Amino acid sequence: MTHFSIGLGTGKQNKKGEWLEVFYPKPLMTPSDAAIKVLKETLWYGDSNEALAATNEQMRVLAESFTNVGENELARIAQSLSNSKLPLVATVLATDDSPTSTPEAYLKLHLLSHRLVKPHGVNLSGIFPLLPNVAWTNEGAIDLEELPEAQLKARTEGRLLEVASIDKFPKMTNYVVPAGVRIAHTARVRLGAYIGEGTTIMHEGFVNFNAGTEGTAMIEGRISAGVMIGKGTDLGGGCSTMGTLSGGNDIIIALGDKCLVGANAGVGIPLGDRCTVEAGLYITAGSVVNVLDDKGEVISKAKARDLAGKSDLLFRRNSLSGSIEVLTNKSSIQLNEELHSHN
Amino acid sequence: MTHFSIGLGTGKQNKKGEWLEVFYPKPLMTPSDAAIKVLKETLWYGDSNEALAATNEQMRVLAESFTNVGENELARIAQSLSNSKLPLVATVLATDDSPTSTPEAYLKLHLLSHRLVKPHGVNLSGIFPLLPNVAWTNEGAIDLEELPEAQLKARTEGRLLEVASIDKFPKMTNYVVPAGVRIAHTARVRLGAYIGEGTTIMHEGFVNFNAGTEGTAMIEGRISAGVMIGKGTDLGGGCSTMGTLSGGNDIIIALGDKCLVGANAGVGIPLGDRCTVEAGLYITAGSVVNVLDDKGEVISKAKARDLAGKSDLLFRRNSLSGSIEVLTNKSSIQLNEELHSHN
Amino acid sequence: MTHFSIGLGTGKQNKKGEWLEVFYPKPLMTPSDAAIKVLKETLWYGDSNEALAATNEQMRVLAESFTNVGENELARIAQSLSNSKLPLVATVLATDDSPTSTPEAYLKLHLLSHRLVKPHGVNLSGIFPLLPNVAWTNEGAIDLEELPEAQLKARTEGRLLEVASIDKFPKMTNYVVPAGVRIAHTARVRLGAYIGEGTTIMHEGFVNFNAGTEGTAMIEGRISAGVMIGKGTDLGGGCSTMGTLSGGNDIIIALGDKCLVGANAGVGIPLGDRCTVEAGLYITAGSVVNVLDDKGEVISKAKARDLAGKSDLLFRRNSLSGSIEVLTNKSSIQLNEELHSHN
Repeated sequence: MTHFSIGLGTGKQNKKGEWLEVFYPKPLMTPSDAAIKVLKETLWYGDSNEALAATNEQMRVLAESFTNVGENELARIAQSLSNSKLPLVATVLATDDSPTSTPEAYLKLHLLSHRLVKPHGVNLSGIFPLLPNVAWTNEGAIDLEELPEAQLKARTEGRLLEVASIDKFPKMTNYVVPAGVRIAHTARVRLGAYIGEGTTIMHEGFVNFNAGTEGTAMIEGRISAGVMIGKGTDLGGGCSTMGTLSGGNDIIIALGDKCLVGANAGVGIPLGDRCTVEAGLYITAGSVVNVLDDKGEVISKAKARDLAGKSDLLFRRNSLSGSIEVLTNKSSIQLNEELHSHN
Repeated sequence: MTHFSIGLGTGKQNKKGEWLEVFYPKPLMTPSDAAIKVLKETLWYGDSNEALAATNEQMRVLAESFTNVGENELARIAQSLSNSKLPLVATVLATDDSPTSTPEAYLKLHLLSHRLVKPHGVNLSGIFPLLPNVAWTNEGAIDLEELPEAQLKARTEGRLLEVASIDKFPKMTNYVVPAGVRIAHTARVRLGAYIGEGTTIMHEGFVNFNAGTEGTAMIEGRISAGVMIGKGTDLGGGCSTMGTLSGGNDIIIALGDKCLVGANAGVGIPLGDRCTVEAGLYITAGSVVNVLDDKGEVISKAKARDLAGKSDLLFRRNSLSGSIEVLTNKSSIQLNEELHSHN
Repeated sequence: MTHFSIGLGTGKQNKKGEWLEVFYPKPLMTPSDAAIKVLKETLWYGDSNEALAATNEQMRVLAESFTNVGENELARIAQSLSNSKLPLVATVLATDDSPTSTPEAYLKLHLLSHRLVKPHGVNLSGIFPLLPNVAWTNEGAIDLEELPEAQLKARTEGRLLEVASIDKFPKMTNYVVPAGVRIAHTARVRLGAYIGEGTTIMHEGFVNFNAGTEGTAMIEGRISAGVMIGKGTDLGGGCSTMGTLSGGNDIIIALGDKCLVGANAGVGIPLGDRCTVEAGLYITAGSVVNVLDDKGEVISKAKARDLAGKSDLLFRRNSLSGSIEVLTNKSSIQLNEELHSHN
């Protein structure tokens, strides 16, 4: 039987012993049968989706056993974790079913940010209630009920307890920094984001979970939950993409390769390749636009949603007439055929 | 005599002994006569608005005295503070007069963020000069004149002195995290914000002091100073509300319940309930708009400021004509009556 | 021979001994011949642009020698640095040639942020490859290859290794806080920014390197690389300026004095003094606009790029016709002359 994924991790729990978050240094997909066998023997893993609590001693035994079967990377992680002052967990996902616990949910978010699965490529249904709302501080995650006392204690001791975020999702970079990226301001990239190699995210950029970039990209705008950005695409400063959680309804927004969305612009439809949206222009699915052919002649009107996913479009607002126009590199005959094929 | 508020606090001072900031773990409104009597006996409180310095020993005595008169919550705070390594203060506001000292100013900002008073519900006049401009660091507040030496010292010792903000206002969450909120990126919510229960502030959200949300709300845009947002209202990513400090002049902007302001949009007028502003559209008070009735017919023009506070309006820019339109669910007869009643 | 600049600094290196960053507490321009002589004698400085490694003992000798020649400020810095636990460097720029090492690049960025040189006033060509992409953490700069082990180690020890940024540029305020500024959220101002005295940068403000403000200014929008903002100018919340790195092409954008760019607006052309851009309006160089005279009559059309740098213009989008208009305080005769003088 092939298993979906495993992660050895450590993290913080509240005073009731409930997980607040889990850090998996190096999760992996489709673990070997040998690795699974070790988990069965050491932690009584039972072949379902399970988050197995482990003592430091058990983690040490895991390290030895992994070494014995040649699973050196797992052994190395287990060895490091065996000294942890924080609780330990070995999470095994036999299948990609909906997550059912905080450690499972965190493992799936790690898989995305480690680029082991793509956005929409892993089952996250029901994840929200599994992610506790937590105070993310300079002393790690703290349960919100335990926060006031911790703040008061720190203050009277002359320390600052810095509360950087109150959220269900932590920032990605405190868990994993994928290779070949720049993220100027990490508070704006959630764990569960998929940041392709060669991506630069400037200070105004933002990436939600289950969203991201395929490869090289310059991101100075906001990538909403569920949105994927193609290679060589440039999101201008402060531009917006409509997400599946907020107003994008059922349309999954994606941008193709080599697109350019201008500063303070926005897109509410998927774009194909090599599309441009002028700075400051927001295209919603319901916008009716004038369609211009390769000679700049208006040949018809179209709803923006009917242009969804098409390539080589340039959207602009005519600065004299005020109408939204879409320009193409196609003749009027080609355009008419293409538009009608979608009616 | 009823007193307005008291707060027992601790905070940092500069080397001259001037307050840089004060942390009040649990301020309260209309303290009992018994509590006031304790403050009079222990700290010679004199019935005006006063920030009373207290030694650790005096704070211990306060704790005992509060216990003796059954003020157990005050006793608990005083007991915790009595061990503080930082200076202590007991601030009593007999009345809601303009604040006259840094501890008084901080107490009023705390009252807002603890939801004990509403924005515009407490006298903040003259507060700016009372709030010193401070370096907010991972070692707490530091006087700007003392900062260069502190930075050099930290560096040569191999530590980083992280300077997160240079501002008159600290971030709210290092002082109080009200119940039932999510604030994805706390650097963007100032102490003095009022964040209603059920509010989620995403990374792009921002809330200034003396501003906030009444209850459940999704905030991905900017709530300027003085602006209040109704229940069930959704501010889209990067949207703007004009504040009383910056361009909003004397009009106090407020949004009613169940409004939706689209991404990258903006409002320069107050909105009633159930209003929508299309993504990317900025409504300023001076904008002249076409008014459409429930059949979508243009029946008149109006200045946006004359629509201030009305409910059930939808603002959009016609994507072909470029004109700003406001749609209603009212017939042209009802609309005419309503508009004329404001002439 | 006059030398350009010197800086005594300390910073972090990776395990290979390569500089990750350098902190210069107090760099200076045109050092005295006496100071240069000390560097020649102590560190064998050879009159070119050099980053001279120094031991703690050498730094102590430097301090003594600077004192002996009356260079007390340099002596004070050298004395403080001589105790550093981190590597030391004395960087001397004989000339303002292109930087050739990480310490030289960092010195030039410091010169800008210390207001010793203005944006475009120092040679930064070829700086990007000299700035390593680094993890900026609460424990200082960490090489990206060394980060995963450091994160794992911190976690197992129960500490949080906070990764605030993955970038070539650090935040300015961890290196220098110039006098007379407020910067509400420092993560958005890069080292190499020039922040004029009297500038307030609100949470939504942003300033890239080699860019900034001349003096008093209220910045709630984004100042892109290479952009300079005049005195008394107000950038509204979320507004955009096109930079030389991204879409601004070869035009260097600058704004004059007393301009007002509205919230969520944008400028792709330089502006003169006392110009206004309405909230929500993006002016690109290619926008064709209606030109109105002092009576509000349309007298001609113009490309925005032909209005570059002119003063006393007000840009708005007519809310009924949808056309972009530029209003002036000039008569139609004056306007015609001015426009034609640019044809």
